[in-house]
Amino acid sequence: MKWEYIQPVTIRFGEGIVKEVKDVAASMGCKRGILVSDPFFLTNGLADKIVKDSDGTLVCVYGEVSPNPEVKEVDACAKLIRENDIEFVVALGGGSALDCAKASATMCFREGESVRTYHGTGVPMPQKHLPLIAVPTTAGTGSEVTCVAVLSDHELGKKGPIVSNGFYPSIAMIDPELTYTLPPRITASTGIDVLCHALEGFWSKGHQPVCDALALHACEIVFKYLRRAYKDPQDKEARAKMAEASVIAGLAFTLPKTTSSHACSFPLTNLYHIPHGEACGLTLDCFARINAEVENGRVHEFARKLGFADTYALADAIHELKVDLGLRLDLKDFNLTDEQVAELVKTSHHPNMLNNPVEITDEILNEMYQSMR
Amino acid sequence: MKWEYIQPVTIRFGEGIVKEVKDVAASMGCKRGILVSDPFFLTNGLADKIVKDSDGTLVCVYGEVSPNPEVKEVDACAKLIRENDIEFVVALGGGSALDCAKASATMCFREGESVRTYHGTGVPMPQKHLPLIAVPTTAGTGSEVTCVAVLSDHELGKKGPIVSNGFYPSIAMIDPELTYTLPPRITASTGIDVLCHALEGFWSKGHQPVCDALALHACEIVFKYLRRAYKDPQDKEARAKMAEASVIAGLAFTLPKTTSSHACSFPLTNLYHIPHGEACGLTLDCFARINAEVENGRVHEFARKLGFADTYALADAIHELKVDLGLRLDLKDFNLTDEQVAELVKTSHHPNMLNNPVEITDEILNEMYQSMR
Repeated sequence: MKWEYIQPVTIRFGEGIVKEVKDVAASMGCKRGILVSDPFFLTNGLADKIVKDSDGTLVCVYGEVSPNPEVKEVDACAKLIRENDIEFVVALGGGSALDCAKASATMCFREGESVRTYHGTGVPMPQKHLPLIAVPTTAGTGSEVTCVAVLSDHELGKKGPIVSNGFYPSIAMIDPELTYTLPPRITASTGIDVLCHALEGFWSKGHQPVCDALALHACEIVFKYLRRAYKDPQDKEARAKMAEASVIAGLAFTLPKTTSSHACSFPLTNLYHIPHGEACGLTLDCFARINAEVENGRVHEFARKLGFADTYALADAIHELKVDLGLRLDLKDFNLTDEQVAELVKTSHHPNMLNNPVEITDEILNEMYQSMR
Repeated sequence: MKWEYIQPVTIRFGEGIVKEVKDVAASMGCKRGILVSDPFFLTNGLADKIVKDSDGTLVCVYGEVSPNPEVKEVDACAKLIRENDIEFVVALGGGSALDCAKASATMCFREGESVRTYHGTGVPMPQKHLPLIAVPTTAGTGSEVTCVAVLSDHELGKKGPIVSNGFYPSIAMIDPELTYTLPPRITASTGIDVLCHALEGFWSKGHQPVCDALALHACEIVFKYLRRAYKDPQDKEARAKMAEASVIAGLAFTLPKTTSSHACSFPLTNLYHIPHGEACGLTLDCFARINAEVENGRVHEFARKLGFADTYALADAIHELKVDLGLRLDLKDFNLTDEQVAELVKTSHHPNMLNNPVEITDEILNEMYQSMR
């Protein structure tokens, strides 16, 4: 068996550590930083607090990141970085701010060029980049330890990832306190995304043992603590454990890559605006059943280690978890037409689908979506 | 809870990958390498084979590494590196060759200086170093993913580690085929060392969740496959799994550090020449019992995940494993005098002992060593 493992991101985890941005920057020999975030954190005071705590180290803010960051935003942020002689980038937010910051930290070295050059074009992203400190505000995306940035280009009608080794943050600072204020709906959606990352990373064709071990750890936490974090947003232990699960699931999927549930989530989000994590979770138990018997029962063994009788019992438990979290269980309220189902089937064939250990045909997808109408 | 994780070593794992040294060097932009190894691999043909497979990329060999590498060897190897305009270092062997290569890859930049300057002196090791490719030949030390080199200085009567972030290899190439020829005794001793790394890393005061997950994975493999690799050296599956366990246990202990069993192993090896792994394993079940109840039963929980009723059952299983592997269970054949026991108690207080979750007093050590007489 051949496998590789690479994980260049230094992880610092702890309640209140977001205050230490200036120390971390100093340890990297950097004095002038930019904070990249979205309008929500600019208005709720968190961005201000981080800038204040930085004692003048964060000299400017790019706060225009939208929920699906645009190539134009990357270009604007990169320009701001150039104009202010910035030495390091701090990204604060969910996946969006991190994605925008990853691309901007590279594009700032490409004056006169747009990130469009590298977006869905096959042109490899240049490697030179500023050091990036990633500060996630949800327990979900794992983006703080991955080398992917998903960008949109409305003008050209494109949405897709750019992958570059230069996108790995230098440091991920995970502060569970930042998640205390997440409302239950977001806790549920981002939390089920953690489960998808771990499970899909595990059964991906690209699975390998280091990531397997981390996937198990992350899944265990989700089943034990996600309900608690959902019911009581101030449950500090549950918040800390979910923050831990999120970053560890990030480590677990970034190399093997996600599979079928993530592939299906993209049209579900794009066409029906189902939040990303909820859209991934919608099909997770279905795909658990479909993937149950692969590779000498390795998914069954994983399920047993989690305390379930087999993969089918694990699938039932995923369903129950979604019920308890108030997450979507079907697509009934969209009253899908036959054409819409056919469109979903067609657009679910995202490249990640090829990582699924069982070949997912149109028939399988059609049967699944029909059962959800 | 606060924790950190850093793991800068790229791991490449697979049967036969040792042939790919030249490709790996090319991917790092390096053309002139040195092979650092010990006389055993120079005479058995493996070093020759690797040099031949490198197609002229490995331009010289330092083959004088002794079982406990000396500061003089590091200085000689560093000189050879300088004289040959070497761009990268390949270390082939057990812990010794890797330790010597780690220090030499840094010291080659310090012409006119001996590694003695940094050995047990508190002077921090300079950070500049050549890229190092670590190729372990045993499934045991985990040295290919750690930043420690243990060196000896006979003239000054010193043996001890140097720790430096510059000692992390760039790439660990784990080729299970290199372990097929290990005789059962070495398989047993190095294999039990893997279990020590994983368990000690887990119960260390410095434990943290990423390493916990990896420790569990490694322990599971040792219990499942070590007996097989011992009984049938050609059991390819068992060899591959033990090679996997070794590198993953390396990831699991390098940050939390080892504890009491490693602390006790040093005098057992220095005074009584018990092989390192066997010396560590000698006390592992004792310390499992001593550490059984710490931190709300987290060791019990770990034992249960491994399929045991509790830590005491895990300790019994460690004992049975040692029996089956023909490993030493006591010190009876040394006919220890009271003075020798007292000396063992005194010299077991290596700094690693401070990482043990239960304070280990002279009384505890005395009782343990008395029970082994």
